[in-house]
Amino acid sequence: MTSPAAGTGRPVPFTADDYRARMARAAGAADAAGLAGVLVAPGPDLVHLTGYRPTAATERLTLLVLRAGHDPVLVVPALEAADAERAVGAPAFTVRDWTDAADPYALSAGLLGDTGRFAVSDNAWALHLLALQQLLPGTAYASLTAALPMLRAVKDTAELERLAAAGAAADATYERILKVRFSGRRETDVAADLASLLREYGHEQVDFTVVGSGPNGANPHHEAGERTIERGDMVVLDFGGLKHGYGSDTSRTVHVGEPTAEEQRVHDIVREAQEAGFRAVRPGAACQDVDRAARAVITEFGYGERFIHRTGHGIGVTTHEPPYMIEGEEQPLVPGMCFSVEPGIYLPGRFGVRIEDIVTVTEDGGRRLNTTPRELAVVE
Amino acid sequence: MTSPAAGTGRPVPFTADDYRARMARAAGAADAAGLAGVLVAPGPDLVHLTGYRPTAATERLTLLVLRAGHDPVLVVPALEAADAERAVGAPAFTVRDWTDAADPYALSAGLLGDTGRFAVSDNAWALHLLALQQLLPGTAYASLTAALPMLRAVKDTAELERLAAAGAAADATYERILKVRFSGRRETDVAADLASLLREYGHEQVDFTVVGSGPNGANPHHEAGERTIERGDMVVLDFGGLKHGYGSDTSRTVHVGEPTAEEQRVHDIVREAQEAGFRAVRPGAACQDVDRAARAVITEFGYGERFIHRTGHGIGVTTHEPPYMIEGEEQPLVPGMCFSVEPGIYLPGRFGVRIEDIVTVTEDGGRRLNTTPRELAVVE
Repeated sequence: MTSPAAGTGRPVPFTADDYRARMARAAGAADAAGLAGVLVAPGPDLVHLTGYRPTAATERLTLLVLRAGHDPVLVVPALEAADAERAVGAPAFTVRDWTDAADPYALSAGLLGDTGRFAVSDNAWALHLLALQQLLPGTAYASLTAALPMLRAVKDTAELERLAAAGAAADATYERILKVRFSGRRETDVAADLASLLREYGHEQVDFTVVGSGPNGANPHHEAGERTIERGDMVVLDFGGLKHGYGSDTSRTVHVGEPTAEEQRVHDIVREAQEAGFRAVRPGAACQDVDRAARAVITEFGYGERFIHRTGHGIGVTTHEPPYMIEGEEQPLVPGMCFSVEPGIYLPGRFGVRIEDIVTVTEDGGRRLNTTPRELAVVE
Repeated sequence: MTSPAAGTGRPVPFTADDYRARMARAAGAADAAGLAGVLVAPGPDLVHLTGYRPTAATERLTLLVLRAGHDPVLVVPALEAADAERAVGAPAFTVRDWTDAADPYALSAGLLGDTGRFAVSDNAWALHLLALQQLLPGTAYASLTAALPMLRAVKDTAELERLAAAGAAADATYERILKVRFSGRRETDVAADLASLLREYGHEQVDFTVVGSGPNGANPHHEAGERTIERGDMVVLDFGGLKHGYGSDTSRTVHVGEPTAEEQRVHDIVREAQEAGFRAVRPGAACQDVDRAARAVITEFGYGERFIHRTGHGIGVTTHEPPYMIEGEEQPLVPGMCFSVEPGIYLPGRFGVRIEDIVTVTEDGGRRLNTTPRELAVVE
């Protein structure tokens, strides 16, 4: 890895020009797709396009309106106008603020026009969408993911650098966690170690620290509980968060003491499945091909029914976003996409295994942003 | 106050029967309003109706479907089914889970039917609403706030007890903060004191700790910054969070050392406005009457342009929800409603004043859930 693992180097900050370019690209992509524009709600889309992150998404409308041939406009509550104007991307958009007694939908409607189909952030509130639909019966709406699935999915060089740095920090965290004591400690203790290490390696936000020991590992949704880890346990570790605004997410499964032959075998199968998923990554392949490749290995060994989730999800300004590596997702892979490849096998009441790397699509295949060994590590 | 301020006594927990009754009431209210049902998204509506709080709202559909004459059904991702089944309200609903490769919208559509108008949680994701609209072109949707504004607005006795306890804890926090040193410390230091006191008095969640000193107090959106508080500053304090799942939210403005005559006068005006707003609270009055009463006082004294936000907002399982005390809101007040009355005056570059109590509507008027003195307190 060329990226520093220790998180001491800060990346070059994004500028207003970066955000201007992103907004122009979004408006252009909408236009090319026959859309009248893009309506962006607070959350990852807005952060990605403007650098602006309101304190919270609320019933008070904040909406970025992007239309080809028009300058970007951010509709914001008057109380938050000063915050919005401090965003790095603010020079690239116009603020239109509204006071509590005004009608923000009428203001927005004037920016949209009476007709056309608009893409709207997946997480925009129904309250706001319904108000626009009612006010502008000639307009239509589609979710941003459905209408412009590539909008945040393909990362540029500056974003890839951040994702690589976040991955390297997660890798450094994994290498350190192998040296801590597992047996006799609770899952929550090891989870706290993971969180502390992620922060030590430069994460400003920890999103999840899964420690699934023994039977808890068989529930992929388990986070970390009061169970005391014992010698003989398999332990699923799955952790990540944001570093310099971009996500990390990696999983490794470790064993406390020597594994049984069955545990080793299940782990080998998942490792082979993860490798197969990774090898399916190349430009032009479909998202579902990655899922199929990983799933085929697990199915071949008779554990198909025990791989109970999709193979992966995108990552960027969030740790969890489109595209999804799942059957039925025909979206072709494009260089610059970043996503997880994370097959697993879950044996109820016994143990689970999951192995996960973040992978980015390159011109000639895939590149892992997590590079720690995928062999079953033995911990104490 | 009859409620314990110190937060040692836990309220009687809500039971599955409580949630069953709430869901039945919601379905019945929808039916009475000519709606086919209520669609509830993760967030405060779902917590209020079921006690279930998913880790996060995501692109994976979680949806509670309430229809008169049908048992409540919760559609959840398979990975989260076990969590949902552990919710206190779970005995009162049926879980219908779906795996990653399945179509949760088709599953939900089967529960909705092909026609009718549904109320949907304000904060439901556009992604999910658009999918249902597309799949069921014969259906129509309205935001829950617009269609059933009273659904969470009117609190029952058990909820009022919790809100009173949260208010008492906020009051105890205020009484203690008056004794800490302000001058020479940063706003963030005092904010940390407020957070620590709220937790000491039983809050499990702190939502905001505004400390707006001197000119920062003139921005009602200011939280707390690095500014060092000085002798002679007015300081707006506005803090709250959740205690036993219900909200607190109170504001007082204090002065470091003796105030000037002008500062005292502005504070007196806001205090009189807050009192006028409180006195306007009675069953049958409209929400906007509370705003008008408070605003009239401030306008009369020539500061109308400096009162730049609505007079109040509801409070319950969140610290910020309908109904809103604002011009144009004709919703009549009903016994059991709880909301803030919080007028303010903001003098840009100089200082601000805000005074806020939570008030509940009683049969014959209003009752304050915050009872600390509203006179301008002098701190050190």
